[in-house]
Amino acid sequence: MSIDLMIEKIKEKNDTPISVGLDPKIDYIPNDIKNIISKKYGFGPKFAAKCLYEFNKGIIDAIYDIVPIVKIQSAYYELYGSEGIFTFADTINYAKMKGLYVIVDVKRNDIEETSEAYANAYLGKTNITYNSKFQAFGADSMTVNPYFGSDGIVPFINVCKKYSKSIFTIVKTSNKSSFEIQDLICEGVPLYEKIAHFVSEWGKDLIGKNNYSNIGAVIGATHPKVFKTLRKIMKKSYFLVPGCGAQGGSVKNISDAFNENGLGCIINASRSIICAHMKNNENYQNEARRETLKLSYDVKKLFS
Amino acid sequence: MSIDLMIEKIKEKNDTPISVGLDPKIDYIPNDIKNIISKKYGFGPKFAAKCLYEFNKGIIDAIYDIVPIVKIQSAYYELYGSEGIFTFADTINYAKMKGLYVIVDVKRNDIEETSEAYANAYLGKTNITYNSKFQAFGADSMTVNPYFGSDGIVPFINVCKKYSKSIFTIVKTSNKSSFEIQDLICEGVPLYEKIAHFVSEWGKDLIGKNNYSNIGAVIGATHPKVFKTLRKIMKKSYFLVPGCGAQGGSVKNISDAFNENGLGCIINASRSIICAHMKNNENYQNEARRETLKLSYDVKKLFS
Repeated sequence: MSIDLMIEKIKEKNDTPISVGLDPKIDYIPNDIKNIISKKYGFGPKFAAKCLYEFNKGIIDAIYDIVPIVKIQSAYYELYGSEGIFTFADTINYAKMKGLYVIVDVKRNDIEETSEAYANAYLGKTNITYNSKFQAFGADSMTVNPYFGSDGIVPFINVCKKYSKSIFTIVKTSNKSSFEIQDLICEGVPLYEKIAHFVSEWGKDLIGKNNYSNIGAVIGATHPKVFKTLRKIMKKSYFLVPGCGAQGGSVKNISDAFNENGLGCIINASRSIICAHMKNNENYQNEARRETLKLSYDVKKLFS
Repeated sequence: MSIDLMIEKIKEKNDTPISVGLDPKIDYIPNDIKNIISKKYGFGPKFAAKCLYEFNKGIIDAIYDIVPIVKIQSAYYELYGSEGIFTFADTINYAKMKGLYVIVDVKRNDIEETSEAYANAYLGKTNITYNSKFQAFGADSMTVNPYFGSDGIVPFINVCKKYSKSIFTIVKTSNKSSFEIQDLICEGVPLYEKIAHFVSEWGKDLIGKNNYSNIGAVIGATHPKVFKTLRKIMKKSYFLVPGCGAQGGSVKNISDAFNENGLGCIINASRSIICAHMKNNENYQNEARRETLKLSYDVKKLFS
């Protein structure tokens, strides 16, 4: 089971339940990288995409021995067009080569046939001729949006089964106005709890040897009060928790997202790690590593 | 206003409120295209992507003089990896060159900063250096998912204002299990009606000279009973209606989606048009044109 592989990697990295978010923008890239790349590629989209890749490789090199997971936010690659998608694919490959568990944060969802295409694109394989298939992106896991209901999610579940992969379903998001829709009271409970029940149900046939399912949930760190309830509804789901750091969530408040053994939750930090060098203009790799170790220390204090 | 441009194109094409969905898969491609492309590219992902592009060009050539709009479903390009995204971008460019209004069906949504990246990727421009920007995909319009609430949509609205573009928000989808979440009763009404009120609100500062807003709604043809209510809530929103044809919705049932003057709604058909040749092994361009004219005739009967 894919979720067991993820847990194994967490344990290998000294029980560090942290994912580093590779959400780069050209503004974050140090000048020395830009200078080298611009000599070869000028200043078009290929320049931007190559800068992002060099930057990502540097971040990965700086943290791969201390964290088990990277989360790659697709929007920041789509922003640079087709060239950006090459960097997205190359980053997945580099992270996998370094032994990291790769979650692509794409939040896809659609009708059944289209969800199947998304699932095969990011986690499965693509048919080309009757006897040839290829792996388009080959991530370990992806985020999905639940709005279409079960038949928009079942194709992802099928691909998780077939290729041993996992998904994380958006349940309660970290942004300020998430309450407008996600907190609407439906049949006596907030909508996000209804979604949580679906997540629990969708995962019931995909439980691994660590008693976690391959169908996880995304829950923002900015809403710490919801963790206790959601933990009860989704006993066997891993929680992927963004929103610490730049978005204002605090690690101290999210102990309820974990189970007692320190499993069940991954904390993702993106900008607080990959932009750490911008505060003091220091080496970006050293700063990213320092911030990652600091976050790791803070998270582990929750269980000490 | 972008929505006025779309209406102008509908009127230019003999008041035809139809969008052709370019959702190609390698299985749909006629052998003569595959044979030519394989000689140059073999049978890898580049072969698949080039086949899709030739096929799309053929479809566009066959229908651009009789319809105003194409809708390009991103999943079927992501399925072929980075090479697929090149075809996605090339298809947008070719359709625009032929004067078509281009909706990219990407159903993106995320937290504010990330939605801004998506909005700039598909509709706006991307900063590369302090004095250079480029257009990553340059579509006229895109579909978005509402689950994050207003601050996940505002960046799209801002980009619509800045670059004169439009968006279509998912409200009620055509798939069978859409009821599971979208029909949950929230404060006395189904969730999709709540979303419809947001869509109406989001569009109120973006009303064009035809009295329609740049913020439209996606509503599946398979739920004809909802049109009357949603038309009342979203008086000034264009409806994008997929699900006729292959998905089982009927044109006859969707007259309530239109206003009395025949405006306010676009019907999208994908597989029924682009796969028409597979039933009888005829020329795919002729069959696509024939199916498009047939759909056009059926839609216009609604107002005769």
